[in-house]
Amino acid sequence: MADDCVFCRIVNGEIPSAKLYEDNTVMAFLDIMPVNKGHTLVIPKKHYELLTDIPVAEFEKLMRELHKLTTAVVKATKAEGFNIFMNNKKVAGQVIPHAHFHIVPRYDNDGIDIKWPSRKYEDGEIDKLKSKIKEHL
Amino acid sequence: MADDCVFCRIVNGEIPSAKLYEDNTVMAFLDIMPVNKGHTLVIPKKHYELLTDIPVAEFEKLMRELHKLTTAVVKATKAEGFNIFMNNKKVAGQVIPHAHFHIVPRYDNDGIDIKWPSRKYEDGEIDKLKSKIKEHL
Repeated sequence: MADDCVFCRIVNGEIPSAKLYEDNTVMAFLDIMPVNKGHTLVIPKKHYELLTDIPVAEFEKLMRELHKLTTAVVKATKAEGFNIFMNNKKVAGQVIPHAHFHIVPRYDNDGIDIKWPSRKYEDGEIDKLKSKIKEHL
Repeated sequence: MADDCVFCRIVNGEIPSAKLYEDNTVMAFLDIMPVNKGHTLVIPKKHYELLTDIPVAEFEKLMRELHKLTTAVVKATKAEGFNIFMNNKKVAGQVIPHAHFHIVPRYDNDGIDIKWPSRKYEDGEIDKLKSKIKEHL
């Protein structure tokens, strides 16, 4: 655990939380500043900063629980849709540097308007990048 | 497969794609309208609309491949951070109704500014909602 990490302190009970689920490796609780009510955070109990820091087997287990939690959150909130997201590093909007997935219930006209920009590849550029990524697989 | 689904047509080869990975159940390819270059989509080959429609075992497999792909995309693009997200239903921004995860490389000052609003729970409300969600777990 990291001493100064808010989520590590929630995991060890130093900071209270609206806990939805806990097992040996995974914990889930309600975000107290929700995008919409029911906004849930799913985290590995062990301190990892990024998705890529989590060993694959632990990540699969985390995702198994996220799947179950999403179903429960959607049912309980009667959400019409939902977003799953995870920000990795401050440049991507990560506020707490302890890996966490967000489950956000969504509704028609809920006032949330997320706009991702869209760029273009130059001729041939996408094939070069494809090859470069495949070299790392 | 769904006849009118763009991603099903990419899976069966009717529509070309910058394919990064494929196995029996999972496919990944570069988004041709990327948020940033290297923006990757990871999908189940079988047509499911939402995360909650994907059987848990298939979802775990999908996430195993997403984990590997994220590492490769980050290395190849030298990203300083990254977002993982999945929009489920049109109200949540889903454009193609075939379940897909986005991997988006991020950089300092890349001009992307995603703002999620933040709401508040009334006194006692968070505990009631916690109990309601736990009933569905």
